[in-house]
Amino acid sequence: MTAQTPLVEFRFDPDPESGFDAAFIAIEVTRLLREGQMTVVGEFVDSLELADAAALLEELAEGDDLDVMRMLPLHDQAEIIGYLRPRAQVDLATRIARRDLAKLMTAMSHDERADLFKQLDEEAQDAILPALTKAEREDLRRLASYEEWTVGSVMTSDYATLAPELTAAQAIEALRTQALDAETIYTAYIVDEARNLLGVVSLKDIVTARPRQRVADLMDTEPVWVRADDEQEDAARLVSRYDLLALPVLDNNDRLVGIVTADDAMDVSEEEVTEDFHKGSTVGPLETSVAESTIMMLYKARIVWLVLLVFGNIFSGAGIAYFEATIAAHLSLLFFLPLLIASGGNAGTQSATLMVRALATGDVRPADFGRLLGREFIIALALGLTMAAAVSAIGIWRGGPEIALVVATAMIVIVLAGAILGMCLPFVFNKLGRDPAAAAGPLVASLADVLGVLTYFTIARALLDL
Amino acid sequence: MTAQTPLVEFRFDPDPESGFDAAFIAIEVTRLLREGQMTVVGEFVDSLELADAAALLEELAEGDDLDVMRMLPLHDQAEIIGYLRPRAQVDLATRIARRDLAKLMTAMSHDERADLFKQLDEEAQDAILPALTKAEREDLRRLASYEEWTVGSVMTSDYATLAPELTAAQAIEALRTQALDAETIYTAYIVDEARNLLGVVSLKDIVTARPRQRVADLMDTEPVWVRADDEQEDAARLVSRYDLLALPVLDNNDRLVGIVTADDAMDVSEEEVTEDFHKGSTVGPLETSVAESTIMMLYKARIVWLVLLVFGNIFSGAGIAYFEATIAAHLSLLFFLPLLIASGGNAGTQSATLMVRALATGDVRPADFGRLLGREFIIALALGLTMAAAVSAIGIWRGGPEIALVVATAMIVIVLAGAILGMCLPFVFNKLGRDPAAAAGPLVASLADVLGVLTYFTIARALLDL
Repeated sequence: MTAQTPLVEFRFDPDPESGFDAAFIAIEVTRLLREGQMTVVGEFVDSLELADAAALLEELAEGDDLDVMRMLPLHDQAEIIGYLRPRAQVDLATRIARRDLAKLMTAMSHDERADLFKQLDEEAQDAILPALTKAEREDLRRLASYEEWTVGSVMTSDYATLAPELTAAQAIEALRTQALDAETIYTAYIVDEARNLLGVVSLKDIVTARPRQRVADLMDTEPVWVRADDEQEDAARLVSRYDLLALPVLDNNDRLVGIVTADDAMDVSEEEVTEDFHKGSTVGPLETSVAESTIMMLYKARIVWLVLLVFGNIFSGAGIAYFEATIAAHLSLLFFLPLLIASGGNAGTQSATLMVRALATGDVRPADFGRLLGREFIIALALGLTMAAAVSAIGIWRGGPEIALVVATAMIVIVLAGAILGMCLPFVFNKLGRDPAAAAGPLVASLADVLGVLTYFTIARALLDL
Repeated sequence: MTAQTPLVEFRFDPDPESGFDAAFIAIEVTRLLREGQMTVVGEFVDSLELADAAALLEELAEGDDLDVMRMLPLHDQAEIIGYLRPRAQVDLATRIARRDLAKLMTAMSHDERADLFKQLDEEAQDAILPALTKAEREDLRRLASYEEWTVGSVMTSDYATLAPELTAAQAIEALRTQALDAETIYTAYIVDEARNLLGVVSLKDIVTARPRQRVADLMDTEPVWVRADDEQEDAARLVSRYDLLALPVLDNNDRLVGIVTADDAMDVSEEEVTEDFHKGSTVGPLETSVAESTIMMLYKARIVWLVLLVFGNIFSGAGIAYFEATIAAHLSLLFFLPLLIASGGNAGTQSATLMVRALATGDVRPADFGRLLGREFIIALALGLTMAAAVSAIGIWRGGPEIALVVATAMIVIVLAGAILGMCLPFVFNKLGRDPAAAAGPLVASLADVLGVLTYFTIARALLDL
């Protein structure tokens, strides 16, 4: 009970600001290994949270990492692997002897070992399979067979099951024997011989029941569930909406094939959010994390929209070309061009982002559109008026009262149009069955640019060429 | 076991796409209420998941909502309140008789009742307090006293405790008696008389232990914990990093004052992400959700950066004014201006967003900066070259080979500069101790605009005025 991250008395003092400082501790551990202080290192690593131990392994030199990992019990080793980044997992796995790796994979949770297996190259896969039991091989192949985006790809098959006729006291005994191999025993599943899901029961309900009460009377026979080939976000959404610790997954014949645990659902949500962030800046989907992406992957994810938007911006250029006479007559108008078109884009980006996120969290629903549009109109008008006031002073200074009037009027219209455009776009995308997150800032800004150019010079020509 | 959302045989058939269609079901329930079919409604509502029942209540007319809620057991009513949006909670609470509300609040989880209490106006607060027990009043005041952004504001005080000398069998009995009032019994806390935290034990470890083993020998004496006055994101980060079901919260004297459960931590993460999205589009912090924000709140959150960016864009305008002679001589240059400056902004927005998100998830660390900068340079160069190729065709068509050369050269430099700028800004903000998320798209785009104008016309003057 001394610090946020377990400390070892001898000299380790991770900065509480940055949490567990794996890079620093790796230097100390390496020194101790060189000095032959294996017991000290072993005790220290054993005292670590497994997530921290994994972070430490990633920082250690090749060879040292395996030496340190082997100081821990097999079950901890198996869990630590799950905490490593995908690339580090594969790197470590390929350096472990086949038989040891098979032992390790047997001890791993089923979803994590399937994920690891998928990452291995074919040669390594073929090497490991014969060392596993038949049941393990089948489980591995089945879990690894689901496509990346499905619930099946994030579920695990090591759930706890109970027979309906057990009493509460017997159920506790049954869960006790399954505890080491099951991902969780806080929720247990009741299935018939065909593995059809009859119900779900929580350990809390079992513990609070009278010892003689039967599982069949305690279970929830209408639990929330999801299909294995649904999108993984569906599972994340259900876990979050119903505050579940685990969500049962059924195949198309209503058979229980796995569960999605709350922490795996959280990982899915995090990935989803990352994808939404990327979409919001016109970055396409990445197969892996940014850190692990190659230059080519990042180039491909970025170039498509950049080029598309160039062609979008040609309309802005064409707009300017169309008004060349007006511009040539009043070159001072150009001073305000960047400011005006950027303001429309900025107001639009704000509106779009507010709506994209509110739709994603369920804070706002598509049905709310009308009410929100009215509100947005008032807000955008107020924003436009304020900005107009701010620029009219500059307008007078740079170009006199006439230019100031043009610029102020244009500002109101442009901010209003940009904001309304930005607000509507996510709803339009949603209506078209597309992800509202694609109503991205740069897209809105490009559209607002075109609108801005046309509005500005139309107003200028009308007011100045009289 | 028939559908994702519990169905009632008679006619309710929520569209599986949209999940539980509360608005539609509310119409049916209202009709049944008017027909006096109370038993049917009661059985139906009782069959719902609590989150769905809450969604239904929000859609029912005033009066009907209370009638329907009262059909459920008190404990369910108390839980349902926690699922309502803040405004709906207050709305409902103010329509419930004082004594009933007191009963309900006694049954609510401690954090949720404190949240509700904070939302009530002073008159309602004063009315409810005398109806509560002294212990409840003190607990309420204490939990409500923490500031919005702290761990204290999201923790709850209804955790389960165990004495260290209990055997595993006795511990199960002890948890059984606490189950109804505790937020979770899957993690229990062992404290001394001064409430100093001695250790943490999971129900799994208790269940799998030999019945005679003592809690003192089972507990983890170095658990992960957090301070009540730390930022709430710290709690969310720890829960996520260490895959915890609950995180103990200590005051500055190391006394246990509450726990943060995984689902509350998830809510904090979601709020954080929303804030990051808003920051990324220069929307300032909102006190409440977008749907519940007033026009004034949204105006205030948006106007600050919009005006600041206007002044930033003056530099772009000044850049154009500075090159007026060059522009007057080659008016066709203007055609490419929106396209070039937008491209710099778009590439920069992409880079900034990629880095902001990668830093937020820990995918990338500040120490990785150098390596990432080198990679970004290569990617940006490739992007710039591709975009230059795309625009040079347009350049030849609109202005001839000389203009095409200027535009292509400018494109490479502008995309490169924009991307590098966008990549560096989050790291600079981080270094300055500010939130990298503030390295927002519109900010990057405005800076890229200035760079773009200067680069474009400098290159044009150099190549065309020879």
